[in-house]
Amino acid sequence: MTVSLVGAGPGHPGLFTLRGAELLGRADVVVYDRLIAHELLELAPPGAELIDVGKNPGESSRQSDINALLVEHGRAGREVVRLKGGDPFVFGRGGEEAEALRKAGVAYEVVPGITSAFAAPAAAGIPVTHRTLSTSVTVVTGRVGDASAADTVDWQALGNAGGTLVILMGVSERADIAARLIAGGRLPDTPAAVVHWGTATGQEVVRTTLDGLASVALPAPSVIVVGPVAALELGSTAEGPDHC
Amino acid sequence: MTVSLVGAGPGHPGLFTLRGAELLGRADVVVYDRLIAHELLELAPPGAELIDVGKNPGESSRQSDINALLVEHGRAGREVVRLKGGDPFVFGRGGEEAEALRKAGVAYEVVPGITSAFAAPAAAGIPVTHRTLSTSVTVVTGRVGDASAADTVDWQALGNAGGTLVILMGVSERADIAARLIAGGRLPDTPAAVVHWGTATGQEVVRTTLDGLASVALPAPSVIVVGPVAALELGSTAEGPDHC
Repeated sequence: MTVSLVGAGPGHPGLFTLRGAELLGRADVVVYDRLIAHELLELAPPGAELIDVGKNPGESSRQSDINALLVEHGRAGREVVRLKGGDPFVFGRGGEEAEALRKAGVAYEVVPGITSAFAAPAAAGIPVTHRTLSTSVTVVTGRVGDASAADTVDWQALGNAGGTLVILMGVSERADIAARLIAGGRLPDTPAAVVHWGTATGQEVVRTTLDGLASVALPAPSVIVVGPVAALELGSTAEGPDHC
Repeated sequence: MTVSLVGAGPGHPGLFTLRGAELLGRADVVVYDRLIAHELLELAPPGAELIDVGKNPGESSRQSDINALLVEHGRAGREVVRLKGGDPFVFGRGGEEAEALRKAGVAYEVVPGITSAFAAPAAAGIPVTHRTLSTSVTVVTGRVGDASAADTVDWQALGNAGGTLVILMGVSERADIAARLIAGGRLPDTPAAVVHWGTATGQEVVRTTLDGLASVALPAPSVIVVGPVAALELGSTAEGPDHC
């Protein structure tokens, strides 16, 4: 095994996996994203090479460079950990990295992580499903690569489909997204919440409704939750990021 | 902090969280579900009381007993870990347990886990989202409590909404679910996969199409994936549950 595509989880270092920690502990090279908990890098051996490939929003053209980097180090026989925010296979472009490695004949392993799509709401006390309030949850992104997802996602159908909706990378498009969901049939007074830096230091939560979403000023990284569950507050009775 | 609602993850013990392991390591009482990895119980101290509340399918009436048990041990000041399969807040009824604890005035903490909704497909080499194949993923359950979800979930709208669909606890209803999704607009030849015991020992994967789903004979626990990504096979090049 040479390259591992490892989910770093949603931000809180305690939400990293045992398997991820094991692989990091023997890594020769760690290729990491901007949004990971930097405490995790301390799990790597002292001599490990740490490579920051943190993408800023919009810089998706660098994905091919990252793929090439993983192939290069993998071919050199190094133990490579590709540490990705959240889960590699949930809007993480891990599929593309896996395809590049497979094509290059480099052995790899995929280690899931906890996605912020579910953990950020949980940290705000919001269960994305609830027996009496929601029997489905849809996760969607406000951006696809370097483009807005406004035209590639069928927001109207999502508006009509019901259930809980979790929108990743959607804060800059929030007014447009809310308008499209309302046009699709979601009621304007549907509860909504914005969770900034969910589970991590600096977490902030704003609760609103679908038609109030446009006026919420929290910046990226934030997760938007839409649906009746967004009105719940079932988080830790001892609040704060130390308690996930 | 007395009661922790902890996600045990999808089955493979390596996919448990560092925070979960820390809490288990100092638990006085562990209240656990049927589908958790039993190796995790070895993380509890030798003297800890281990209580199996494993529900068989259909036995949801026992949820109130579980709530009462958590309240009782929490009130007694014990460090209680409620170890739940997957994630407590993703079809895990953790919301109901949190509500019961809050109502009883017992302090609690929620620790997310990796949901099998995303990890089981990953273990089969299926990323639930993919830049060119799917920009949304919907997770839904085939059962709601002790009832079939056939009539409480709007399958037709889900059929129409597009994106990847992940169905938990749906194998016994698979023929009915497939028919409803096709009626809603999904093409009969849409790729589908059934992942039995995803990430765990005994993992089996069957690939099919939506109209072939009815004839797949894998039993519960299984996760059904519907959508173009279900045709992908990007799993570990070193296959097997030891490599997640």
